[in-house]
Amino acid sequence: MHFLAALGNNPKMRSVLCLFEGVATGAADGWYRMKDKPASTLLHLGPGLANGLANIHNAKRASSGMVNVIGEHSVSHLKYDPPLTSDIEGLARPLSHWVRRAESADTIGWDAAQAAAKASGHPGQIATLILPGDTSWQQADAAPMLPPPVAAHRKAPGAARIEHIARVLRSGEPTLIILANKATRGAALEKAGRVAAATSAKLGSQFFTARIERGAGRVPIARIPYAVAQATAFLKDYRHVITVETKEPVAFFAYPDKPSLLKAEGTLVHALVEEDEDSELAFDMLLQALDATGTTPLVQPRIETPVPKGALNPASIAQALAAALPEHCIVVDESLTTGRESMSLTMGALPHDLINNMGGSIGYATPVATGAALACPDRRVFCMVGDGSAMYTIQSLWTQARENLNVTTIIFANNSYAILKAEYANMGAGEPGERALSMIDIDKPRIDWLAMAKSMGVPGIAVETAESFHKAMVDSTREPGPCLIEVRL
Amino acid sequence: MHFLAALGNNPKMRSVLCLFEGVATGAADGWYRMKDKPASTLLHLGPGLANGLANIHNAKRASSGMVNVIGEHSVSHLKYDPPLTSDIEGLARPLSHWVRRAESADTIGWDAAQAAAKASGHPGQIATLILPGDTSWQQADAAPMLPPPVAAHRKAPGAARIEHIARVLRSGEPTLIILANKATRGAALEKAGRVAAATSAKLGSQFFTARIERGAGRVPIARIPYAVAQATAFLKDYRHVITVETKEPVAFFAYPDKPSLLKAEGTLVHALVEEDEDSELAFDMLLQALDATGTTPLVQPRIETPVPKGALNPASIAQALAAALPEHCIVVDESLTTGRESMSLTMGALPHDLINNMGGSIGYATPVATGAALACPDRRVFCMVGDGSAMYTIQSLWTQARENLNVTTIIFANNSYAILKAEYANMGAGEPGERALSMIDIDKPRIDWLAMAKSMGVPGIAVETAESFHKAMVDSTREPGPCLIEVRL
Repeated sequence: MHFLAALGNNPKMRSVLCLFEGVATGAADGWYRMKDKPASTLLHLGPGLANGLANIHNAKRASSGMVNVIGEHSVSHLKYDPPLTSDIEGLARPLSHWVRRAESADTIGWDAAQAAAKASGHPGQIATLILPGDTSWQQADAAPMLPPPVAAHRKAPGAARIEHIARVLRSGEPTLIILANKATRGAALEKAGRVAAATSAKLGSQFFTARIERGAGRVPIARIPYAVAQATAFLKDYRHVITVETKEPVAFFAYPDKPSLLKAEGTLVHALVEEDEDSELAFDMLLQALDATGTTPLVQPRIETPVPKGALNPASIAQALAAALPEHCIVVDESLTTGRESMSLTMGALPHDLINNMGGSIGYATPVATGAALACPDRRVFCMVGDGSAMYTIQSLWTQARENLNVTTIIFANNSYAILKAEYANMGAGEPGERALSMIDIDKPRIDWLAMAKSMGVPGIAVETAESFHKAMVDSTREPGPCLIEVRL
Repeated sequence: MHFLAALGNNPKMRSVLCLFEGVATGAADGWYRMKDKPASTLLHLGPGLANGLANIHNAKRASSGMVNVIGEHSVSHLKYDPPLTSDIEGLARPLSHWVRRAESADTIGWDAAQAAAKASGHPGQIATLILPGDTSWQQADAAPMLPPPVAAHRKAPGAARIEHIARVLRSGEPTLIILANKATRGAALEKAGRVAAATSAKLGSQFFTARIERGAGRVPIARIPYAVAQATAFLKDYRHVITVETKEPVAFFAYPDKPSLLKAEGTLVHALVEEDEDSELAFDMLLQALDATGTTPLVQPRIETPVPKGALNPASIAQALAAALPEHCIVVDESLTTGRESMSLTMGALPHDLINNMGGSIGYATPVATGAALACPDRRVFCMVGDGSAMYTIQSLWTQARENLNVTTIIFANNSYAILKAEYANMGAGEPGERALSMIDIDKPRIDWLAMAKSMGVPGIAVETAESFHKAMVDSTREPGPCLIEVRL
């Protein structure tokens, strides 16, 4: 309450209300993805933290920095074990890089500065600061704070490693450079493109990437497919895999009789950039070692996609997207089965950013889209989300309406956890019986998405053809504020 | 997936689909409250568990038993640290009594039986069983299982303690017996009533109780108020407090300049029944020690409450409830500010069960009502919930529609976290400024509750007067299935 009161006195801090903690933590992730700077959440004791943990997991896996402030009982009260008491450190540690319990009003300023420094380093970290009530309401010492801690900078890769990678590239053997995190955008991506142009190496990404700058004019990156069979086929001819801020590709799940590691037997894996290192600097060093600083990268040409007509299916949906996406929009993708294999059709769209779920916990897209829209008020955000996933954190719509955020939420309504049907088959569990299917289908009752949008103040429209889907997306960009498109499949 | 497939082969196991894990864990709590037997949840890796933790916290504080089965990567896959990997044991332990990782298909049967035994003991426990994928898909040994473990029984209180309590009661000094958990219903409550009738002791409950059998014909229990000033006033004249399956009363939160312990200075606290002991047996022993086995308890007379008319306020809302509640209905109360101080007006209603939130994490009522309705298909459940709380786990409505559950959800729509306004004042943070208020009010946009209900297949009605509220409640009992009443405040 004192923290809330203090917000009123600090115009430099913007506060946004969310109706569920998972929306707040996901929005902080979305903010970081676009700003490369952490946001802070304010959560209520252990259970409030618990409600935010799934999207903290996703943010941690995306290397997004975040400061979670957890309100806690005052020290004098804790020993009586009142109802809301729990082991907050215990709940926070598995998904935090740094956890501290503030001990007095005198030191809380320094604690908060350290939390912000931890979250702001490279890679971003999850910093959790537990704030007991009495720490808020006690009088603070007026003594000046120690110099605030400094965030960790990106490290330089070693020269020997650069020399080794240059030798691999000069060999001319088939090589895939897998880019991730900060290497899939900006100057790092452009320089990776020069390395590819100067050698015969290909550029690739994991199936999920924190944020990719893609579309016309950007250096294109090929995406390793999700399914194990397609992924191993994609990778089988590479003699070398070079990793940049990531590890070698692994399957999302294990399956009976399928491999966990996706590379071919005999493929050699070389780390070029570790996750705490500087990709742009590494590519600069590599270009020098290759004597290729003047190389021009290949960039993606613009592909004018005609507006598709007729039935909605993964291809026509991707074509409608390619035709509709405005320049510099942001696409947050949690479409799972609907969008999974067809996003390559949007490679030649106008330049845009693509954001994926790095932690695999569903319910990430609507909060992350909310945070991305807060971070970039002049850019339209398209949030592609399956109906099952959307129901996890649907409260995001309310914050989007409240803040008049430019988010177009696209619900792929197949009335089913379609991904589970695919995984069911993958797992070798046979054909799902009636009862198993009843745990996978969500068509009874069918969710009324227009009513859902209306309930939280978001205008909605349902589409049943590719051309009406395209039109709805274009229309959504004409007015500020959120809207929801139900894509009936 | 193999677990799901197996459900189809086991007609003794009923499976219910929820759209969010917090609904599943809260429903398991509601099931236990009515059945005194645990339900099981099936959750997906660490983040799926995390989404269920807040209502696991509430269930743990209610001594509700529950078996949480957490799907996990197969052993061979974990070492590659795929996206959904997290420290599941770390997340589970702070809110579980028992955690085990199943190690093979040969032992999983015994592990599951032990989880069920732990959850089924007295008091109920949170048992968390982590189920790696390969444990599901490997062939199991056909050898017969060891005898399954046995759940812990209620213990008998010691004779010396009974003798001590009998001396206190015979002293005639002002005494309050605080009943909790299994002591607020059935034979234990009836026998507590005899003890009170045979002595001058009063019967009381904490402000929150897992489940109370109350209304006409039941032994009445006075409720210790929520607010510190009222609670200390309630308790100040008692020389003795005797606790039954609970501890001495403490404030929900600490406040500057207010006490944490609510009893008067000099009041003596005596434990009659510890949380793992048998209240009914304790009261039997106490009645013998008091030579009062033949005493008749005082019971609550029926009070016919006339249907209130006009404005909706806490008193008219409680009167409408008192007039409308049908015999043997179940009331799940998370009304916070609206219902907090007026529930005593329903003491003389037809006999019913009242369920409260024991852990203080909001978003408990709609899931618990769902589970209570699954447990008691022949009883109507009234779920009283504030608008802010309802938005935490609103996905419950969908499961209620899917299973055609007899739940009347009553949304107290004051468009605000009204409890935070009260706590703001209590905390001495002064008058909330414009920005602090904007973090407490949820009226921009106003949630359209009828659209929300419709979106998940639940019929809804809005009421603005006490008489229409009463009529809507009565109407809701005429047809099976769920409905939602928006009480516009």
